[in-house]
Amino acid sequence: MTVLVVLTDSSTRNEQQQAAALIRRSCGEVREHSPSLLSTVSDLAVVDRAVGHLPQVRHVARVQGDYPRASVQSRMGRPSTVALGEAAFGPGQFTVIAGPCSVDNHDQLMEVGHAVRDAGGHALRGGAFKPRSSPYAFQGLGRRGLELLAEARRVTGLPIVTEVLDVRDLPAMLPCVDMLQVGARNMQNFALLRELGTLRTPVLLKRGLAASIDETLMAAEYILDGGNTDVVICERGIRTFETGYRFTLDIGAVPVFKERSHLPIIVDPSHAAGETARVIPLALAAAACGADGIIVETHSDPAAALCDGKQALPTSRLPELIDGVVNVARVAGRTAGPTMSERNDRQRELVLTGDPAGTVASARVRWR
Amino acid sequence: MTVLVVLTDSSTRNEQQQAAALIRRSCGEVREHSPSLLSTVSDLAVVDRAVGHLPQVRHVARVQGDYPRASVQSRMGRPSTVALGEAAFGPGQFTVIAGPCSVDNHDQLMEVGHAVRDAGGHALRGGAFKPRSSPYAFQGLGRRGLELLAEARRVTGLPIVTEVLDVRDLPAMLPCVDMLQVGARNMQNFALLRELGTLRTPVLLKRGLAASIDETLMAAEYILDGGNTDVVICERGIRTFETGYRFTLDIGAVPVFKERSHLPIIVDPSHAAGETARVIPLALAAAACGADGIIVETHSDPAAALCDGKQALPTSRLPELIDGVVNVARVAGRTAGPTMSERNDRQRELVLTGDPAGTVASARVRWR
Amino acid sequence: MTVLVVLTDSSTRNEQQQAAALIRRSCGEVREHSPSLLSTVSDLAVVDRAVGHLPQVRHVARVQGDYPRASVQSRMGRPSTVALGEAAFGPGQFTVIAGPCSVDNHDQLMEVGHAVRDAGGHALRGGAFKPRSSPYAFQGLGRRGLELLAEARRVTGLPIVTEVLDVRDLPAMLPCVDMLQVGARNMQNFALLRELGTLRTPVLLKRGLAASIDETLMAAEYILDGGNTDVVICERGIRTFETGYRFTLDIGAVPVFKERSHLPIIVDPSHAAGETARVIPLALAAAACGADGIIVETHSDPAAALCDGKQALPTSRLPELIDGVVNVARVAGRTAGPTMSERNDRQRELVLTGDPAGTVASARVRWR
Amino acid sequence: MTVLVVLTDSSTRNEQQQAAALIRRSCGEVREHSPSLLSTVSDLAVVDRAVGHLPQVRHVARVQGDYPRASVQSRMGRPSTVALGEAAFGPGQFTVIAGPCSVDNHDQLMEVGHAVRDAGGHALRGGAFKPRSSPYAFQGLGRRGLELLAEARRVTGLPIVTEVLDVRDLPAMLPCVDMLQVGARNMQNFALLRELGTLRTPVLLKRGLAASIDETLMAAEYILDGGNTDVVICERGIRTFETGYRFTLDIGAVPVFKERSHLPIIVDPSHAAGETARVIPLALAAAACGADGIIVETHSDPAAALCDGKQALPTSRLPELIDGVVNVARVAGRTAGPTMSERNDRQRELVLTGDPAGTVASARVRWR
Repeated sequence: MTVLVVLTDSSTRNEQQQAAALIRRSCGEVREHSPSLLSTVSDLAVVDRAVGHLPQVRHVARVQGDYPRASVQSRMGRPSTVALGEAAFGPGQFTVIAGPCSVDNHDQLMEVGHAVRDAGGHALRGGAFKPRSSPYAFQGLGRRGLELLAEARRVTGLPIVTEVLDVRDLPAMLPCVDMLQVGARNMQNFALLRELGTLRTPVLLKRGLAASIDETLMAAEYILDGGNTDVVICERGIRTFETGYRFTLDIGAVPVFKERSHLPIIVDPSHAAGETARVIPLALAAAACGADGIIVETHSDPAAALCDGKQALPTSRLPELIDGVVNVARVAGRTAGPTMSERNDRQRELVLTGDPAGTVASARVRWR
Repeated sequence: MTVLVVLTDSSTRNEQQQAAALIRRSCGEVREHSPSLLSTVSDLAVVDRAVGHLPQVRHVARVQGDYPRASVQSRMGRPSTVALGEAAFGPGQFTVIAGPCSVDNHDQLMEVGHAVRDAGGHALRGGAFKPRSSPYAFQGLGRRGLELLAEARRVTGLPIVTEVLDVRDLPAMLPCVDMLQVGARNMQNFALLRELGTLRTPVLLKRGLAASIDETLMAAEYILDGGNTDVVICERGIRTFETGYRFTLDIGAVPVFKERSHLPIIVDPSHAAGETARVIPLALAAAACGADGIIVETHSDPAAALCDGKQALPTSRLPELIDGVVNVARVAGRTAGPTMSERNDRQRELVLTGDPAGTVASARVRWR
Repeated sequence: MTVLVVLTDSSTRNEQQQAAALIRRSCGEVREHSPSLLSTVSDLAVVDRAVGHLPQVRHVARVQGDYPRASVQSRMGRPSTVALGEAAFGPGQFTVIAGPCSVDNHDQLMEVGHAVRDAGGHALRGGAFKPRSSPYAFQGLGRRGLELLAEARRVTGLPIVTEVLDVRDLPAMLPCVDMLQVGARNMQNFALLRELGTLRTPVLLKRGLAASIDETLMAAEYILDGGNTDVVICERGIRTFETGYRFTLDIGAVPVFKERSHLPIIVDPSHAAGETARVIPLALAAAACGADGIIVETHSDPAAALCDGKQALPTSRLPELIDGVVNVARVAGRTAGPTMSERNDRQRELVLTGDPAGTVASARVRWR
Repeated sequence: MTVLVVLTDSSTRNEQQQAAALIRRSCGEVREHSPSLLSTVSDLAVVDRAVGHLPQVRHVARVQGDYPRASVQSRMGRPSTVALGEAAFGPGQFTVIAGPCSVDNHDQLMEVGHAVRDAGGHALRGGAFKPRSSPYAFQGLGRRGLELLAEARRVTGLPIVTEVLDVRDLPAMLPCVDMLQVGARNMQNFALLRELGTLRTPVLLKRGLAASIDETLMAAEYILDGGNTDVVICERGIRTFETGYRFTLDIGAVPVFKERSHLPIIVDPSHAAGETARVIPLALAAAACGADGIIVETHSDPAAALCDGKQALPTSRLPELIDGVVNVARVAGRTAGPTMSERNDRQRELVLTGDPAGTVASARVRWR
């Protein structure tokens, strides 16, 4: 069982080393996640006996799974906030990412981008690289799709959320993208998670089709462990026996994620619904049960979509959707819409430090 | 594939027989569910060619599963309303059933009953016969529990919802009960369903742990086929791989049930949640996504409950729950609280026709 | 946690009461399942401290679930044997039940019955009462089906296995049936299980579609608790996301059932397969992994079957099936075919004690 | 629906182009997988009308999913054989891969390697890169593990099977490895699959925890589509509600894979079992139901294993395992052990063509 030890923010390096040494002596191994966060795998009582009496120790707590950094205890119960452009995922806010499944072409993306912005959406999604079950299905526009996303950001002002499939694409993606999505099928692609941990771009981590809540948080821990603290979890439906829709939206996971982790959690109602008419009811359910936002597929002409048009909400219905979720979220105890109060104002300008050839080893970024 | 044929309400017996004969000639077999509802198993085109041109035919439609009576097409898209005491399940209403898992004793039940009524609940639930995985677990108070439920109805005025496990208990139950619940584990106990079809007491049919949406509607069809039209479906969580809670609440099934059936559908957030703190978020999700109501376990002293205390909402939190769901339901497009407009005012006085010994063969009831 | 205490067979009534009293004093409650088997819900250490030192105590053990009688520990690791006609389910044997899904008519049943006997099958199955998802599907021949089963027994000499759906059918069934099957959908129909516990007819208990291994054993415990010790478990496939066949045959449950319970466990390959061509491979897998037998659907003319013809093995392939499973079972460490060594030679002649009207209360039987 | 068209082997380039042109005219798009294999997405009847009459067309068939190359129809029903060292996966053979979960150290690997060879195993498995749910769990020895695997191959003569997690590791892996395993969690890591398609090293593709049979075959199609025809599927257990073991071994998938694909399919009994005692029963079940082999975790000292020791079979029991599966496979219709008759005698000596720095772009291999 993972036990963590939270030290006071004012603890000195000496005090931190003292606590670590005492844990190591009693439990064999200690992990130092940050100056004020230590963990070990042991019994709570053993750890408490070893360091619970020290003045620099604020909190000794057992964590449900092996995810000390992602655990709600590591922040003493305070939910974290992840900024995305002018918006943010976190307490008191309800944030809407919307956009087409795939970037189909220039006009489609600009049209949808403006519709999302005008309806009050906070970020634009769109796939340039698409993970498809069949190798013969449309796989996205690739690099051309990234250029279009960059243009859509320029003309709409919305931050861009898009999926990364291959670590080797990162150098090309980073200048165009504000949040990197890890799809359900890659949730335990640990090589990819490790790489994202070295970046400072926020990550939207979708829960796998058969991933438990704890496995999802351990996947997030891979990213946090690398130093990237901006992780948002996304519940998007799990695989069950029911075939009446596409996936079973696990709405009950939302409060459990909140109990166990400080990370924001949003819901994708589109993939679970599988059909347009069910998207708004599921989005409202997400807003009611305490999620921090939603990510929705929308299209100006669903019938012409190159991917997943059947579940795309027409852009004409975006105002109904966004008004609905904002109102329900307000009733359920959140301030309406994205208050800017907890917005992270770190400079988001990227400075690529890689070599001109853009190899993976250089796919690191710095922040001003 | 089941195809149904809806005739005009003004069609004559002759016209009905003409339609039935034409279907029989083309498709082999015709089922006459009511004077104006026929069905057959065939292709839509074949049936349409056979009777689509007749003036007495309003509608020819394919049904998703083999449940012509439960299908939304059988009522031409109009949801049905099921009355329960002063309240009802149906359009424009959101109805709350609450009460203890099991009837533990006199004081507990009366205390909870008053709390439910005072908080604005519409019906009182409580188990006299409890289905328990282990034969050694508390199995309910049985007949004594029924007497207490009857008393609680008298003193609170609330209608009573309780579970039936055995057809042989029905004669004792009917005088004390306003709605008979079929538990998830009995959803395909067809002998029980057939028996309930002969009654006129409303039935709350819980979806089985691994029952598909269509199988649930076919189970309802067993009851409807017997002539009892007052069936309410209850989504209460399905079995999946996730162990972070008790059952996976299948919120996405709610809009699918609505697409396929005219029957009201309510949600049980308690069994899925497994823990008190998650009950309200799930109840709000149910109200947001279009359910017709909820059934919630509540207890004045959860720690002392003889059954499922861990998931019981303290009665002190009932006002928060009920205000929450009513407000969310209103935002999601329902009128707040149970409007009485669609209340069914059939006389609910029961007239037992059985013999004095109360054997099963006589467990029939009549309505004035 | 359930803890059981096995006493020596030679313990006196006084010694039994002494052990029970000591457990009661330490743990609050003691359950006396038989003179030599006690259980309580407590910690192993507590119970061991209370009675472990007594000379009449042979064994104190923790049971995985709340099924002291069904537990492997209750028989000190010795598997039990359940007799069925000339055959039996238990160590050193591999027993084959085969027959049609439903009793369709006289000629079909006699033809299949002879084919089963001639191929070396040990018992004949056939449904007189069929549980069907749709109320409009063929529900079995009912009483007429029972008569045909009785005739098939007379002419083939094979014992009869058939499903019971309704406690009220038992008086009619008992004279015609050698083993009562509880279907997957009724596995937690506790009223039915309790009733079967009062009988001395062997019961074939099918695991529910979403029932855990422990829940299945607790369902068996309901029957054992009533005094009927002849229970055989049947794994018949569970509900999962996969749609490539009908149900997911949980072959891995077989060794787990064996670890946890002394009850025989057989496998139904037909319902999982869903298609004829897959039945033999799954039957061989069952024989290889340690099951005590199989129950297979077979038909002389699958295309004409009134129920589940798609998965019925033609009777012409029964010799291939039965030779295959016997040979595989032999390689996997069982003696080939049903050795008669452990055959239970209790007189199987039934003596109905009910009243002439045959009401449920009288559905008891005695054994010579 | 995918429809494929198989041409005669003797068809000329002109005849192939004629067939392709006719399909394109009727169906819009034609995919040319090889000179004699074309496919399109259309109706069977449309394609048959377009080209069924041509003398160069041998076969027009509908495929269950979008995997024309993996489909059983593409080889007219003939199963394919994949060579691995002296052994092979395919008809008439039953091939055993065994070894430790992870390469722990030099002595462990050599000891296990010799035990596998001496017991009659055909290949040695061992993880150098381990995918672990927690970032803090042992992640494998990495490059050092590869060196040890190469040494084990040298001293035992057994071919090496190991898992690849990251395309960037391929250049270092290829000289040390004879078969690359894709783990369940990476089954839909399409970037990795595409990369493996460019190689000529055989691939062992494990089915994902919630992947359908068809999705697994479409993942295989990604590799086949790149030109690598040596793909073996591995069933290793799926996620279900049951917690009595680690995963639900989907034995029923084996015959379905065989119906739909010509690719060999093996079974991993270890991960499903979760505990040593259940490994042999599940391995026997695999041999009985028609699998082409197994991959088993074994360790000379399970208690000291750095990974998954709980489910590792002690090497001392390997003879019992391998004799058992060989005997069961023989009874179930396979020749005992790996006949060498279908052994692929292509020279397996690798010639790396990459640049000295070993970047991914150069991770191609050639065959003599």
